[in-house]
Amino acid sequence: MNATRQNTDESQIRELVEAWAQAVRRHDLDDIAAHHSADILMFDVTAPPQLRGMEAYKESWRNFIAWLGDSGKFEVSELEVAGGADVAFCHGIIHCAGAGSTSGLTIRLTIGLQKVDGQWTVTHEHHSEAQPS
Amino acid sequence: MNATRQNTDESQIRELVEAWAQAVRRHDLDDIAAHHSADILMFDVTAPPQLRGMEAYKESWRNFIAWLGDSGKFEVSELEVAGGADVAFCHGIIHCAGAGSTSGLTIRLTIGLQKVDGQWTVTHEHHSEAQPS
Repeated sequence: MNATRQNTDESQIRELVEAWAQAVRRHDLDDIAAHHSADILMFDVTAPPQLRGMEAYKESWRNFIAWLGDSGKFEVSELEVAGGADVAFCHGIIHCAGAGSTSGLTIRLTIGLQKVDGQWTVTHEHHSEAQPS
Repeated sequence: MNATRQNTDESQIRELVEAWAQAVRRHDLDDIAAHHSADILMFDVTAPPQLRGMEAYKESWRNFIAWLGDSGKFEVSELEVAGGADVAFCHGIIHCAGAGSTSGLTIRLTIGLQKVDGQWTVTHEHHSEAQPS
C-alpha cells in the first residue's frame, strides 16, 4: 500500500465529511448532496428502513433541517477513516439537537465511498440512534 | 481497476458475510468473530452507542444469541458489496426474530472491511433498527 496515497485519500475524505457537516449547519441541500451518488442507499435514523436515490436522500435532509432550525446543533466527532485506493469507509458520532431542545441526540454515522472519475463519491450512509438496552 | 480482482474480492466478502450469518444461526461465537479485528468498532442496535474491541463484540453476540434461542431467525438479504483492492464495505438487511416471537425485526447492517495480510478483516459493524417516523 502506498502510504502517501493513503494519507491523501484519508485527508480528502475527512474534508468531504467536514464540508458535508458544514452544509447541514447552513441548510444547503445542494452542498449536502454535492459528493453523493445519484443511486445512494441510505439507512436513516427514522423509518422507512432504507431510502434509495438522490431525491429520497434530499427529502430526508429537508425534514432534518426543518427539525434542526436556526439554532440547532450538528457536530461530527470521533471520525475514523479507512481509505483504500478506490473504496473507503468512515464512521463517527454526530452530536445534534433541534432548535430550542434542552437535550441532544447521539447519532452513529457510517459512510461508504467509492472513487468515481478520480473523485470520492458517497454511495452509502447509515445513520442511527442506539435503542435503550 | 482490475475487474477480475474486484470480482474475487466481492465474492470473498459475500462468502465471509454468509459464513458469519451461519455462525450466528448455530450460536458459534468463535466463528462469528473469526474474520474480525481485535480492535473492531461496533455500533450495535441497542445502547451503549458504541463498543470497542473483541471482548465487547463477543459479549454483544452472547446477549443476542440468548435472545435468538434455538428457533430464532437470522437471515441477511439485499447484500450489496463495494470491494476495493484493500478496503471494502457492504450493506444489507437482516430479518431476525427471537425464539417464539410472532413478529420479526428489520435490522440495517453495514460492514467495513480492510485487507490484512491478504485476508479480508472486519474492522467496523453498524447494526440498527429504524425508529418510527
